[in-house]
Amino acid sequence: MAYITLKNERLPGIVGLLDYRPETARPLNELAETLLRGPSTLTRGERELIASSVSNWNHCHFCHSSHGAAAAAHLKTGIALLNDIKADLKQTKLSPKLRALLNIAKQVQQGGREVTEAAVKAAREQGATDLEIHDTVLIAAAFCMYNRYVDGLGTWAPEPKEAYVETGEMLAAVGYVNFRPPAEKS
Amino acid sequence: MAYITLKNERLPGIVGLLDYRPETARPLNELAETLLRGPSTLTRGERELIASSVSNWNHCHFCHSSHGAAAAAHLKTGIALLNDIKADLKQTKLSPKLRALLNIAKQVQQGGREVTEAAVKAAREQGATDLEIHDTVLIAAAFCMYNRYVDGLGTWAPEPKEAYVETGEMLAAVGYVNFRPPAEKS
Repeated sequence: MAYITLKNERLPGIVGLLDYRPETARPLNELAETLLRGPSTLTRGERELIASSVSNWNHCHFCHSSHGAAAAAHLKTGIALLNDIKADLKQTKLSPKLRALLNIAKQVQQGGREVTEAAVKAAREQGATDLEIHDTVLIAAAFCMYNRYVDGLGTWAPEPKEAYVETGEMLAAVGYVNFRPPAEKS
Repeated sequence: MAYITLKNERLPGIVGLLDYRPETARPLNELAETLLRGPSTLTRGERELIASSVSNWNHCHFCHSSHGAAAAAHLKTGIALLNDIKADLKQTKLSPKLRALLNIAKQVQQGGREVTEAAVKAAREQGATDLEIHDTVLIAAAFCMYNRYVDGLGTWAPEPKEAYVETGEMLAAVGYVNFRPPAEKS
């Protein structure tokens, strides 16, 4: 049970909050859509991996699982990917550029002032562009918001990773602005 | 100098970043406008105090100063208010409800899972509504994003608090979606 009375208590995580306050839902969804699915030289799968990793570092089970499931849908890995995201993607083959960007994202998660010139330089040496560095910092920063929003209001989240497969496929297929929760489809 | 090459290096803090990436600027500005200036039973001054306090706790000088200056403009206190925000508003007369909401904001700043039912209950006992609690959590979470965005990309910020007076007055008068930096007015 969330700390506030939502319109629909069955909706988990951020879904119930977006339903509760449509005025803030609009920019929150538009930001996620632009960062995670808009035109970019980072693939949608790579961007969802950054989002899910930051959420894991913030111990936000709902966001880690739903964005990890979206990454799994984009990358066609299966839902076991969520375990590897929890282990900082040691088993998953990633480009050196994405590893360097994930390192920047980890610093952002710890705090804005924790980001080092050395980490930015290392990403650039692996081919990262200014826009990719910008978007990585903003994705990581944005998930420091979404994670706090979801957990700070005490929302509930399904426990098993298998419960996120359908949501992940829907996020990968239709995205954030047009997302409808699986349970509300009919 | 920011870690990336902005279109206009003279624009400080988030202003240069919003100018660099208009696609993400739009939802970022709309979110700030809705949370800090949209219809609410919290005054605009109270909401800017929450934003500036969270930014101070995150050691983000640009956001602490500009939103503190906006609070000062709304509340007609003068720019010395920024010193008191740094001292957790010990000298400023606030309602018990706002004190209780600031306590929730502090927990959000520390992490989503740090927010306690006791803090929410205490705010409710001081008359806070569900929507006020929701918006306080989302304002605090959003500034954990804005602060990381500004500092994570190494943007520059004017040092003296007096340099923020004009920006604060403009934010109070015209808000976020219609904001133009003072230096670009002509």
